[in-house]
Amino acid sequence: MSDHVYKYIELVGSATTTIEDAIANALARAHKTVHNMEWFQVTETRGHIVGGKVAHYQAVIKVGFRLDD
Amino acid sequence: MSDHVYKYIELVGSATTTIEDAIANALARAHKTVHNMEWFQVTETRGHIVGGKVAHYQAVIKVGFRLDD
Amino acid sequence: MSDHVYKYIELVGSATTTIEDAIANALARAHKTVHNMEWFQVTETRGHIVGGKVAHYQAVIKVGFRLDD
Amino acid sequence: MSDHVYKYIELVGSATTTIEDAIANALARAHKTVHNMEWFQVTETRGHIVGGKVAHYQAVIKVGFRLDD
Amino acid sequence: MSDHVYKYIELVGSATTTIEDAIANALARAHKTVHNMEWFQVTETRGHIVGGKVAHYQAVIKVGFRLDD
Amino acid sequence: MSDHVYKYIELVGSATTTIEDAIANALARAHKTVHNMEWFQVTETRGHIVGGKVAHYQAVIKVGFRLDD
Amino acid sequence: MSDHVYKYIELVGSATTTIEDAIANALARAHKTVHNMEWFQVTETRGHIVGGKVAHYQAVIKVGFRLDD
Amino acid sequence: MSDHVYKYIELVGSATTTIEDAIANALARAHKTVHNMEWFQVTETRGHIVGGKVAHYQAVIKVGFRLDD
Amino acid sequence: MSDHVYKYIELVGSATTTIEDAIANALARAHKTVHNMEWFQVTETRGHIVGGKVAHYQAVIKVGFRLDD
Amino acid sequence: MSDHVYKYIELVGSATTTIEDAIANALARAHKTVHNMEWFQVTETRGHIVGGKVAHYQAVIKVGFRLDD
Amino acid sequence: MSDHVYKYIELVGSATTTIEDAIANALARAHKTVHNMEWFQVTETRGHIVGGKVAHYQAVIKVGFRLDD
Amino acid sequence: MSDHVYKYIELVGSATTTIEDAIANALARAHKTVHNMEWFQVTETRGHIVGGKVAHYQAVIKVGFRLDD
Repeated sequence: MSDHVYKYIELVGSATTTIEDAIANALARAHKTVHNMEWFQVTETRGHIVGGKVAHYQAVIKVGFRLDD
Repeated sequence: MSDHVYKYIELVGSATTTIEDAIANALARAHKTVHNMEWFQVTETRGHIVGGKVAHYQAVIKVGFRLDD
Repeated sequence: MSDHVYKYIELVGSATTTIEDAIANALARAHKTVHNMEWFQVTETRGHIVGGKVAHYQAVIKVGFRLDD
Repeated sequence: MSDHVYKYIELVGSATTTIEDAIANALARAHKTVHNMEWFQVTETRGHIVGGKVAHYQAVIKVGFRLDD
Repeated sequence: MSDHVYKYIELVGSATTTIEDAIANALARAHKTVHNMEWFQVTETRGHIVGGKVAHYQAVIKVGFRLDD
Repeated sequence: MSDHVYKYIELVGSATTTIEDAIANALARAHKTVHNMEWFQVTETRGHIVGGKVAHYQAVIKVGFRLDD
Repeated sequence: MSDHVYKYIELVGSATTTIEDAIANALARAHKTVHNMEWFQVTETRGHIVGGKVAHYQAVIKVGFRLDD
Repeated sequence: MSDHVYKYIELVGSATTTIEDAIANALARAHKTVHNMEWFQVTETRGHIVGGKVAHYQAVIKVGFRLDD
Repeated sequence: MSDHVYKYIELVGSATTTIEDAIANALARAHKTVHNMEWFQVTETRGHIVGGKVAHYQAVIKVGFRLDD
Repeated sequence: MSDHVYKYIELVGSATTTIEDAIANALARAHKTVHNMEWFQVTETRGHIVGGKVAHYQAVIKVGFRLDD
Repeated sequence: MSDHVYKYIELVGSATTTIEDAIANALARAHKTVHNMEWFQVTETRGHIVGGKVAHYQAVIKVGFRLDD
Repeated sequence: MSDHVYKYIELVGSATTTIEDAIANALARAHKTVHNMEWFQVTETRGHIVGGKVAHYQAVIKVGFRLDD
């Protein structure tokens, strides 16, 4: 991480199963167009409720990726 | 969500297994008396420790539910 | 918790599997030298990314433990 | 405000016109069942977008009301 | 706290004497209608001034109480 | 919002008239190049002053838009 | 803004009509004694309620003004 | 509080006895030159330690006072 | 405080009487093993409730102490 | 700091060279009219950009000064 | 800044020498592809340590740039 | 950073010259007794003032170091 420059993007992923899967879904989508993603930080965990149960989780994540030199 | 009014309640659920189950337990209990719960936000994740291991997780969640018109 | 004094330490644990395992790994390591750990609070959830997938999760936790009288 | 006890509730109101109307709609609905509301604080301002325009504003407000003695 | 579900309410108590009394007054009033209050957190300390002196303190507290199973 | 991935952008719009117009101006400009904007959150409200009056309001907003699958 | 020094003051203005008017009223009053006010930031939006309606809005603003060299 | 404009000042008071006295000392000093102080908010509570005991408490408070019309 | 290095520890003290005593109890315990404690900051004030009354207060404090050169 | 009362002012200084110089410039200007300034805290670091380079840094600082007894 | 719309990007720059150079490196890289950058705000200052010394500083900055009309 | 556990300590370093030197002084002192320090985050920048000038800077930093397996 010494002499590179990184940029953050903030994403919202969702999944019906777990918070981890919501994170994975956001990363999988971003990976199609963003290269060199190196780390993420969860900034918010939330979700929707149907019939008193979690219908899906939503993870808001900030992702740091390395800009090409 | 256009012309409704929503109210927040804040709950603490717990589970010995996962953070997701702690959320589910809070929602299941609230569902007995609160109708039209639509979304939640995790405001704190914590837990108790026994013998160096997580005895149970606690999820503090804010839940938004629709008020009857 | 009535007449004891507690101290906080802040740890970072990691795991390739789940956020819960990252918490468990931090507690397991601390348990080798710290006695009477009673509760934890997650202050940050993050991780590293390799090839568009989560390589490992990192959980930053504050742990409260009871000081001997 | 000297010797009373107050309670907060947190509400989300919406309106297609202005932030002020979103606040008013939340208060009007709460007024049907809550007496003695005395002040509010806006904790979040947000809204939904359709076709690049604000479809409706949402005001999240905390409302303080006096409990009967 | 293992398998229960808790709910938060947020209250404002006041007292002319001390911050501790302001907390006590809020709890005393809530105790009339809320059972199983177990802990509180002070979220704000404030007050009114008359003639350059504190006329009364106000403590804003969040109170956690156990929901019946 | 179930199985989509969303991205946030943060914008600053301004208007001489109202805070609502400052939001609208930011959205109108973004709409030229960003599709599927679905919601916004106001993160800061500010403005410039000339002659003791508001010359223009500035609304800082985070906008969530759906990424194409 | 290059080589000047600025000072902040924090004000509370109110108005029965809109948030914008509450800001304007605070600025109009400050303008009587403070010169060179250049920008403001809204730090809190709140108000009082009478009969289930907003009696007046209150805008808490920080105002930056240039100190004479 | 309807049509007045208020200004905040932020003060640090101290006392060897209690937090309440630290607040009172700050207000007493400010009262010599500031009129119409109406409310305060505690923004920080701290103090100095000598020999393992509190030598004095420090209360940082924001004080709102009414500007003359 | 010019050329020294300080370290923070975070403690939780409790007392049945006052917030000030909860702070004092934390400091008294820490004083047994930590030298040169110089200042503290209260980061959280909370407590437990029994029968609608405060059973004991808890003060979470960060304490700065000077490291030996 | 035992029995004095302190007041905070918040300033914005700027400099083309370093953050430290931006702090120094704010203090130098305030020193012309404010006596007994004792400490500062940086609350924001920012700046303006021209041609992809920092044109000047801006340091927002809160300054504590002792009020005359 | 009157009738333009601005967008924020968040970057991480690093440098072995100073915090100012870490900011400059982030801006220099962004300047290759982003036009009309006008201001920045430092949101985090951090760095890596090797052998008890700072190996490099990292400045996380939000940069505001003007969107073409 | 994959399978290690890290601990945070929080330090205050000071220097008469620059913020960078204040960080360096804290690290140099900690390095005498703490091994494997890997990164730091600045949580507060402050200082003392004498005669309208910065007498010394103080950097509050959180330092992450790797615990032995």
